[in-house]
Amino acid sequence: MGEFDLIERYFKRPAKRALLGIGDDCALLQPPDGTHMAISSDMLVEGRHFFANVDPRTLGHKALAVNLSDLAACGAEPLAFTLALALPQIDEAWLAGFSQGLFALADQHGCELIGGDTTLGPLNICITVFGSVPAPAGKSQALLRSGAQAGDDIYVSGHLGDARLALEALRGKFDLPPALLLTTRQRLEEPSPRIALGMALRGLASAAMDLSDGLVGDLQHLLKASKVGATLYTAAALDRLAARTHVDWANAGISDDAALTCVLSGGDDYELLFTAPPSAAAALQAAVLQSASPIHCIGRINAGPGLLLHDKNGRELPTHFTSFDHFS
Amino acid sequence: MGEFDLIERYFKRPAKRALLGIGDDCALLQPPDGTHMAISSDMLVEGRHFFANVDPRTLGHKALAVNLSDLAACGAEPLAFTLALALPQIDEAWLAGFSQGLFALADQHGCELIGGDTTLGPLNICITVFGSVPAPAGKSQALLRSGAQAGDDIYVSGHLGDARLALEALRGKFDLPPALLLTTRQRLEEPSPRIALGMALRGLASAAMDLSDGLVGDLQHLLKASKVGATLYTAAALDRLAARTHVDWANAGISDDAALTCVLSGGDDYELLFTAPPSAAAALQAAVLQSASPIHCIGRINAGPGLLLHDKNGRELPTHFTSFDHFS
Repeated sequence: MGEFDLIERYFKRPAKRALLGIGDDCALLQPPDGTHMAISSDMLVEGRHFFANVDPRTLGHKALAVNLSDLAACGAEPLAFTLALALPQIDEAWLAGFSQGLFALADQHGCELIGGDTTLGPLNICITVFGSVPAPAGKSQALLRSGAQAGDDIYVSGHLGDARLALEALRGKFDLPPALLLTTRQRLEEPSPRIALGMALRGLASAAMDLSDGLVGDLQHLLKASKVGATLYTAAALDRLAARTHVDWANAGISDDAALTCVLSGGDDYELLFTAPPSAAAALQAAVLQSASPIHCIGRINAGPGLLLHDKNGRELPTHFTSFDHFS
Repeated sequence: MGEFDLIERYFKRPAKRALLGIGDDCALLQPPDGTHMAISSDMLVEGRHFFANVDPRTLGHKALAVNLSDLAACGAEPLAFTLALALPQIDEAWLAGFSQGLFALADQHGCELIGGDTTLGPLNICITVFGSVPAPAGKSQALLRSGAQAGDDIYVSGHLGDARLALEALRGKFDLPPALLLTTRQRLEEPSPRIALGMALRGLASAAMDLSDGLVGDLQHLLKASKVGATLYTAAALDRLAARTHVDWANAGISDDAALTCVLSGGDDYELLFTAPPSAAAALQAAVLQSASPIHCIGRINAGPGLLLHDKNGRELPTHFTSFDHFS
């Protein structure tokens, strides 16, 4: 099967939102009037971002999900995406699974595949995603990393650390009970981008980003962009963020230290990290209800630089928790 | 050097056209009022699209050039691009050369790097490019593959076959004189996207595409999209398209058959293939002067399907020339 048959069979669908989809030299897109276009690109490489034997359906899901998560972080509404794919060989079963997972998530968010490229080569998936952000009177409502102010509360959506716990289990570091492996592995392989929450946070959050490299490392990017510091309540992080599974974690023999590492520097969470002034707290709760995404306040922005971690007794934690990674 | 330092040092420059460039979760772009956005994506893989030892400066040029060529084929004006890069290791000399070649071409076309991704992995370069096409009263002026009509003339810009001749010489198939190797190799490694010509063809060409896989194969995609056939004057192809170097080719011992193969199914030409009604011929010549791109009429569109190749005596050529590739 050649490149053109492959595209025809697994990836070409009639254009709905785009003026012109797959099949010409370019796709044509017209962003809605009065909006700006948000654009992000992520490249996934075998062995680095996923295991060689991963289910192609979940890989199709995740490749798009990590891109949609960037749109969510900006408060953008998904429009379309391009897919460039290097494949070591033409494996029709793999392509069927991959495209099924990809399109299931794309359809869920009304995000249309409009073009791309396929080639032979070491497995590599590069998606570029397009979304729209309202810009009334030319003023963009996009959520940026740079708007956090001293006194703002720091929030995260959902709960953190599951993906990293599953990754370490798959690497053989932990021996998890089957049920816990199943739930955490689903969080690793099929993250749900927080699109609805991101859109609901427009006009409420002072700064936002998505969590892909781990809470502590990512937060420091936000602090740097906003030229502020922060205090993180690690008790909140540990007790609330991993709340759904924390009891299971303890039962599975995961130490508090290991759990804290997963939560603070786990990576692959694809939750939203954002800041908002205390005055916005009530409006935030309403937004959360609207988007059906739980959020937790886990810290506060300080005027001075630096990141402090306080344990449940208000004591500062050892600084090794502020570094990025403890397993590798 | 980590990912963020690498981006800071080699790729981050202040945003000029974009509302928001590198550094946040998304870039923000506002296409000019009354335009549609043209989008294309190309992925280049080591060993398949370029040799491992290629000069990184020319690789940076070519990775963007092949994308800009897609914009040219649509008549789009370049706006911006994203770059996703998988690197086997951090090699600062390589990065310096690559980014230099990339930005030199980008600046030439006012095309701004607005975002992307970097990761460790087998060398892979994925660029997604954005351009604007005027759409007065919502009607796009984009050049498509699907508009060719029976009776239209078929044109190509520049001359063809150089890139393939250089590729085969580098593979050891031909032993070219140094001067011929130099000129053809530059055409292989540093193609010039026909942006000005593409923009000048708006409203004149009935269909257009860029030549990346070879004239005969690419033309058949245009014919299929337009639901027509064509007669190609191979005498014109051989005698005029390769005119600049054809004498040198003969002197270098390249047979007519090998030369015809390079011209008809060479690939990597990045010239424009387009059609226009005979009534547009005078206006076309004016457009060509304006864009400083030579064009040649090499055939005619037929109502009936199929592609015929006629030699200089008007005789049909053996059908093996209509297949894609004769070297591999």
